[in-house]
Amino acid sequence: MISSGGFLALFLSLATFSFALDNGLMRTPPMGWLAWERFRCDIDCKNDPKNCISENLFRDMADRLAEDGWKELGYVYINIDDCWSSMERDSQGRLQADPTRFPGGIPKLARYIHDRGLKLGIYGDLGTHTCGGYPGTTLDKIKVDAETFAEWGVDMLKLDGCYSNATEQEKGYPLMSAALNATGRPIGYSCSWPAYQGGLPPNVNYSLLGDICNLWRNYDDIEDSWASVLGIVDWFMTHQDILQPAAGPGKWNDPDMLVIGNFGLSVEQSRSQMALWAIMAAPLFMSTDLRTLSSEARAILQNKAVIGINQDPMGVQGGRLLKESSGIEVFWRPLSDSASTLVFFSRRTDMPYRYTTSLGKLNYTAGVYKVYDVFLQKTMPMLKDSTEFTVSVNPTGVVMWYLIPKAGVWEEGARYPDPRHRSRVTL
Amino acid sequence: MISSGGFLALFLSLATFSFALDNGLMRTPPMGWLAWERFRCDIDCKNDPKNCISENLFRDMADRLAEDGWKELGYVYINIDDCWSSMERDSQGRLQADPTRFPGGIPKLARYIHDRGLKLGIYGDLGTHTCGGYPGTTLDKIKVDAETFAEWGVDMLKLDGCYSNATEQEKGYPLMSAALNATGRPIGYSCSWPAYQGGLPPNVNYSLLGDICNLWRNYDDIEDSWASVLGIVDWFMTHQDILQPAAGPGKWNDPDMLVIGNFGLSVEQSRSQMALWAIMAAPLFMSTDLRTLSSEARAILQNKAVIGINQDPMGVQGGRLLKESSGIEVFWRPLSDSASTLVFFSRRTDMPYRYTTSLGKLNYTAGVYKVYDVFLQKTMPMLKDSTEFTVSVNPTGVVMWYLIPKAGVWEEGARYPDPRHRSRVTL
Repeated sequence: MISSGGFLALFLSLATFSFALDNGLMRTPPMGWLAWERFRCDIDCKNDPKNCISENLFRDMADRLAEDGWKELGYVYINIDDCWSSMERDSQGRLQADPTRFPGGIPKLARYIHDRGLKLGIYGDLGTHTCGGYPGTTLDKIKVDAETFAEWGVDMLKLDGCYSNATEQEKGYPLMSAALNATGRPIGYSCSWPAYQGGLPPNVNYSLLGDICNLWRNYDDIEDSWASVLGIVDWFMTHQDILQPAAGPGKWNDPDMLVIGNFGLSVEQSRSQMALWAIMAAPLFMSTDLRTLSSEARAILQNKAVIGINQDPMGVQGGRLLKESSGIEVFWRPLSDSASTLVFFSRRTDMPYRYTTSLGKLNYTAGVYKVYDVFLQKTMPMLKDSTEFTVSVNPTGVVMWYLIPKAGVWEEGARYPDPRHRSRVTL
Repeated sequence: MISSGGFLALFLSLATFSFALDNGLMRTPPMGWLAWERFRCDIDCKNDPKNCISENLFRDMADRLAEDGWKELGYVYINIDDCWSSMERDSQGRLQADPTRFPGGIPKLARYIHDRGLKLGIYGDLGTHTCGGYPGTTLDKIKVDAETFAEWGVDMLKLDGCYSNATEQEKGYPLMSAALNATGRPIGYSCSWPAYQGGLPPNVNYSLLGDICNLWRNYDDIEDSWASVLGIVDWFMTHQDILQPAAGPGKWNDPDMLVIGNFGLSVEQSRSQMALWAIMAAPLFMSTDLRTLSSEARAILQNKAVIGINQDPMGVQGGRLLKESSGIEVFWRPLSDSASTLVFFSRRTDMPYRYTTSLGKLNYTAGVYKVYDVFLQKTMPMLKDSTEFTVSVNPTGVVMWYLIPKAGVWEEGARYPDPRHRSRVTL
């Protein structure tokens, strides 16, 4: 058993509050849909009209977010990624959408999205070109691009970092932050900067990032595979003592999109991604085809308890408590109102593993706790800190619990932590 | 594009017929259920009574095979793996089942299974101990163990190879073959021998294996993960020029169990395992909990067309035709009555890939072909050898086709290759 003393100790010093980019946005991790992982740079609208990067795709996804119960759960951003623009800026030097794939332009798409109570995100790249080879935002273009996005009614910007060096990034990312603020339009700001600088100090200054960005990509792009999800989790947990204090309301580490609903994850693995992203207080950007989503994937992505945990208003990032030699790992995140969440995760590839422990062994203070199983969707027997219990954890799967002290009560009639009602939970 | 000339050339010389272990069994790859991958050496019947290795588990699975449509599709073997026996032989030196977990003994379980029209497989180990530490079959015990199994009514033996050396294996595996034959009871014989000797000549003599075993494990144990399935596929395809000629009616390479229905594979990956096991003419031993199987997994395991292809009576193993730099791979297997199967497989982890080719490019002779899509379960438009077509292949997924020349006809009214009716297909 490897104990992670540093990780626990951090929370003991969490009496301080910190301030993030003061656009007032994203006090809880942003939620929505982002095109990249599932739809990439597919611009072949002739042969693949339903899936190519075009206004049709974003309208389709906006319809699904608005009509299939996503919006009410908090999934409100519809985010464009690379390959949306024309290969040339216009005669005034402004970015412009590809005229054949976005014949209505971005403003019309923004209206469509706003009319449905949703928000529009767009993609830019600090550098000479985007990663896909489209026009980039060089330092001299930052102001005009920020103004263009604001005029168009954009609500969020992901600023990638292909084709720029460290010096340009050090200038450009803060400049764009200021330029977005100067537009007067609240625009959430996602910075890929740390991912281009290895994600760790001293090359990355997380204090500065928290001041200028609402979220930031720390590490590699996610792929539609369990190996990719696991690699990301491992990196974030290995460096949790550095990453955890950087996060808070308005400023989030971003382990990248949810790939749930695509082709590479089993149902167990999908639950694991959702649970671990909630532990990490990660932005929840789905990147899947919401038109053809399976009922299993939908149930996981729409699980109210796991969303509620992810969206906890205290906004403290959790992490890994234990790595057992059996391949079982235990993750923990403190939540507001003395609640908390525990995730028991199995790295095994053989069969369900019966893991025995107690809340006391997991550093819980003495007392009795109410336990709600997030994926079983049921309340478990009360647990005393000293009581030994056994959870059966499936290979590559999780058991996820929401816990509150016995003295605390759930919302009247509520069976799970609901983000919309959290403020009314009493102790 | 890497062409695999050797692989194709092999089929051109397939005019010869070869003879396998002459017990007359397993003229097509055996099908059934095997405990190991899913249930391992779980002997904790006190805390895990539904899943521990006991007569209850095998009776439960026999009930499912008999009642849920499996038997009719060919899944007839119920196979015990390690950890079934007592830690000591009896006073006559015979193996005996653990008395608390198998209170009725193996003969009673065999009757239960036979009464349901199924067959019973058992596990032994050529060596001092089984891999799990139970009594092994040393050379001096081969005769008595073969006789014991025959008396008990056992229909198949998997003989593992832990705790023996190459010399002992070279003696023991043929000796057991002869001892089984000498009992007069037809007992299918699965040899783990090649897996313990690296799976390749000169340490492995596939000609000899075909003479003494009905099937043999060539390579590593499968685990409940896509990485494991992919590793096995890669090994078998890398060495297909050696392995392909070894297989035929009554003698099969065994890439190990189907892990479909467990925790680690997505739906796409499950279809891929089923398709590639059919290409390899592999034994189809499920190792999953048939009591709780999802409908998606059931549909894949019970797909009549892929079973029909796996069970093709000509019994020629197929293999990989092409590895494209795009990550698309094409697999092919020739079937009886001039039929064939093609599998388009994607190693990508991004998005569906549109792969364009023609039957001519895949070495099909000139002509028009009828095409049936195995997982879509529908007949496709006729294809001329020279016609370019595009298949969209999902990440880690397959598109699988069954093809017959236009002149050939499916069974009257049949929409897919049905193993039970294959002999009535006319050309």
